[in-house]
Amino acid sequence: MRDIRQLVTECFTAQGLMHTLGTRLVSVDPGEVHIALTPSPALTQQNGFVHAGALTTILDSACGYAAMTVAPDGYNVLTVEFKVNLLRPALADEFLAIGKVVKAGRTLTVCTAEVIGTRDGETKTIALMQATIANVALQA
Amino acid sequence: MRDIRQLVTECFTAQGLMHTLGTRLVSVDPGEVHIALTPSPALTQQNGFVHAGALTTILDSACGYAAMTVAPDGYNVLTVEFKVNLLRPALADEFLAIGKVVKAGRTLTVCTAEVIGTRDGETKTIALMQATIANVALQA
Amino acid sequence: MRDIRQLVTECFTAQGLMHTLGTRLVSVDPGEVHIALTPSPALTQQNGFVHAGALTTILDSACGYAAMTVAPDGYNVLTVEFKVNLLRPALADEFLAIGKVVKAGRTLTVCTAEVIGTRDGETKTIALMQATIANVALQA
Amino acid sequence: MRDIRQLVTECFTAQGLMHTLGTRLVSVDPGEVHIALTPSPALTQQNGFVHAGALTTILDSACGYAAMTVAPDGYNVLTVEFKVNLLRPALADEFLAIGKVVKAGRTLTVCTAEVIGTRDGETKTIALMQATIANVALQA
Repeated sequence: MRDIRQLVTECFTAQGLMHTLGTRLVSVDPGEVHIALTPSPALTQQNGFVHAGALTTILDSACGYAAMTVAPDGYNVLTVEFKVNLLRPALADEFLAIGKVVKAGRTLTVCTAEVIGTRDGETKTIALMQATIANVALQA
Repeated sequence: MRDIRQLVTECFTAQGLMHTLGTRLVSVDPGEVHIALTPSPALTQQNGFVHAGALTTILDSACGYAAMTVAPDGYNVLTVEFKVNLLRPALADEFLAIGKVVKAGRTLTVCTAEVIGTRDGETKTIALMQATIANVALQA
Repeated sequence: MRDIRQLVTECFTAQGLMHTLGTRLVSVDPGEVHIALTPSPALTQQNGFVHAGALTTILDSACGYAAMTVAPDGYNVLTVEFKVNLLRPALADEFLAIGKVVKAGRTLTVCTAEVIGTRDGETKTIALMQATIANVALQA
Repeated sequence: MRDIRQLVTECFTAQGLMHTLGTRLVSVDPGEVHIALTPSPALTQQNGFVHAGALTTILDSACGYAAMTVAPDGYNVLTVEFKVNLLRPALADEFLAIGKVVKAGRTLTVCTAEVIGTRDGETKTIALMQATIANVALQA
């Protein structure tokens, strides 16, 4: 496990957008990765809710890193495509994206993810993703 | 047309994430909106390309604003869902998201969008979106 | 529960395509509907596997009927959109589509569904759907 | 072009579901394939409109065959995933699915497709697809 966690942490740290949005890598397990986001005025759409683009960023990264934990040695991952449903206004004290591998293949991995919002001790599902991630051979 | 442009511009200006990512509202026409993004280290994923989350942000906003230009008076718009295909590495000098209304309904509008990347005078399609936007009555 | 089951059964029976493909309504519970499909040469693609169109038909119907079980009185349902991932070749003795409501709204309901294939006593997930269903007022 | 047309025609003829639904291969050009469907009671949902599953079948096949026309020699195609928006009730005298390649890659091809319905001489877009197709090496 140590290697997977280190691999994902290094990759996460290298992503400029993760810093810009203030996201945090919460946990890395085989086939499952959690990423947190704290709302701020820098992330809003016109109603003061968190923008779908910011939610998608943590959903996509949670899926991509979950796929990375099961990718063959010597492979990096690249998102092929995803679909997002926004279930409720993104209004919470804290958001957590949970990405999980549904099917790991040799070249393609399918993941699902959800964003859970916590507010006043209550949790609600804010958004759902279904995504396809490709394994890409690292160049020697 | 003046009102639609003003409406979209005010809404765009009110979105914190648009400022954070450095996006620019380029044009507003009935059923079509263009939004530009200049790459920077603040927007990258681990390979130095622009993160899918940043591309999705301008795709989603271009679709949402295109839907807003055809929404009935007294209605705001809210993204229901979208699907994004990433066609190529997001490597360009400049990105332009072009959102277009395909079908405007009373309660739901369907849009498509693409991100065009320009580099050394050449343009390429980087990403494709197909999205559903809801019309939501403004509260009096 | 009796009414929901009757409502869904009547609607299912009225769908010509359900008969043409030989699908069977297996169970109707609040927020969850199961539909079965037995493979036959009438349903194949070129490799002899069941065609994605046939799998999508039972996925879409399972989602639509699951949404129908939680729709307000006097409302019918209509699929707005869906996204399907095909995880494995559709090779099994029997397929079961399981549709579940994730979030029931006043006008829109979000569902997920999967097709489970059973072969030689083993089960595998063959396909995944994420769908948006609209509640539509019945005309008096 | 003769070979591509023959390849697609043979594959189409080998698909049981195409016969069951009564679809017709209308045209095969590099990167673009057209498939027609005539409505009948065998294809309906509960309102008498053509079922989304039947529309998806011709959308998916139009995309898959369009991808096949640009696949490398010795490769077959397999649908990875698709997303469909249903824009209007599927009520027409005739439906035509038009599938087009947007980006052909070595291992993955991205296509879009639409279903056009013709009724009383008027045409309307009924459904939209955005799809990912994989090139799969034929076994020797």
